[in-house]
Amino acid sequence: MRTRFHQSLDELKEKLLRMGGMAEQAVDRATDAYRRRDIALCQRVFEGERAINITEREIDELALDLLAMQQPMAIDLRFIIAVLKINADLERVGDQAVNVVQRVMELTKLPEANLTADIPKVADTASKMVRMALESFIYARADLAESVLKLDDELDELNAQTYHNMMAVMQQTPELVPQALNTMLISRNLERVGDHATNIAEDVIFWVRGADVRHHFDTGGDSAATM
Amino acid sequence: MRTRFHQSLDELKEKLLRMGGMAEQAVDRATDAYRRRDIALCQRVFEGERAINITEREIDELALDLLAMQQPMAIDLRFIIAVLKINADLERVGDQAVNVVQRVMELTKLPEANLTADIPKVADTASKMVRMALESFIYARADLAESVLKLDDELDELNAQTYHNMMAVMQQTPELVPQALNTMLISRNLERVGDHATNIAEDVIFWVRGADVRHHFDTGGDSAATM
Repeated sequence: MRTRFHQSLDELKEKLLRMGGMAEQAVDRATDAYRRRDIALCQRVFEGERAINITEREIDELALDLLAMQQPMAIDLRFIIAVLKINADLERVGDQAVNVVQRVMELTKLPEANLTADIPKVADTASKMVRMALESFIYARADLAESVLKLDDELDELNAQTYHNMMAVMQQTPELVPQALNTMLISRNLERVGDHATNIAEDVIFWVRGADVRHHFDTGGDSAATM
Repeated sequence: MRTRFHQSLDELKEKLLRMGGMAEQAVDRATDAYRRRDIALCQRVFEGERAINITEREIDELALDLLAMQQPMAIDLRFIIAVLKINADLERVGDQAVNVVQRVMELTKLPEANLTADIPKVADTASKMVRMALESFIYARADLAESVLKLDDELDELNAQTYHNMMAVMQQTPELVPQALNTMLISRNLERVGDHATNIAEDVIFWVRGADVRHHFDTGGDSAATM
């Protein structure tokens, strides 16, 4: 009986990793869609969201079944709760990818503008954070999770740069307001992806250490200098 | 023993309601701070965030203790999981209030502009959604929770109006870009408050009905027409 329980825990972990892969892929596709102004790729992100939502529900139900099936030990209990929380964050990473492609769809309708926004770099940092957060979960490595928290400062800085650059464009070239605004919002959505990766990293630390690090690092809210 | 468990469940519910009150108050204060450009009130929202974070942690720990203490029945298990999820959303409502006052702080540094944005109406709708979502939780009323989901469409519409109005201001009056942008972002933060209220309403329906309504209503991602 105990063994079957642990097999189910493994299954839960595996499903969550698949969910993580789907969320990561959504962000990467959204970034490619931005780079290439690719409407077909936008469409695939929209479609992928449905699969992410279905997987989220399956994971929640499996976690609930495990909690109901037998009284888990403290460490397993914390693991299952961490999975539930990480699951919710991954679903929201998928939502942010959808938000990005909605902005890309707007951009495709507008004349092309050569704006000084390094969206690929913002996207790479956000994507890397999600990947590292999932890795810290796979290997139960609190140190890796802490690196994610540090990367979040870098991401905030990149987003702040985009914000200020796009603000300058809007003030100097009113006809580029729609392009600059959409670019700014894409950067912001990617910064939110990083926030979710940060949440995941905190949940991993909570699970591994049995301690709650949330709010020791101030990740709630945006920094005043950015947006 | 069973009775002590149910007393603890009541305590958990009460703590969550207090948390809800704090989150609601943060949104209301942020809105007042916007209306009056009141820096002292902004400061109180910043300070209040710490209290919200501490309460979030206490609720999580109590919920974990309850799960560990004894094997809860299926309905109690769903209740505790719903509390954990609602708790996370309420904390993020508090984060959004912080985001709003950060924007208000920016606005206080800028020359006043008479912009056609009905922020109080956006704020009232968002605030009402949080209140209704908490009420649906107190009285275990799935019908009330469903009204929250409907109100979210209204809120999205209000936010879309602000978006289009502020976009027009930025295009026509470049010197008002900072004011219009900050106002737009405040509206967007309030729209996110509504998203969290929607998440809470869905969790209530999940708990009351034991069924998962998430993703039946498409609340993930922003609507393409808005931002």
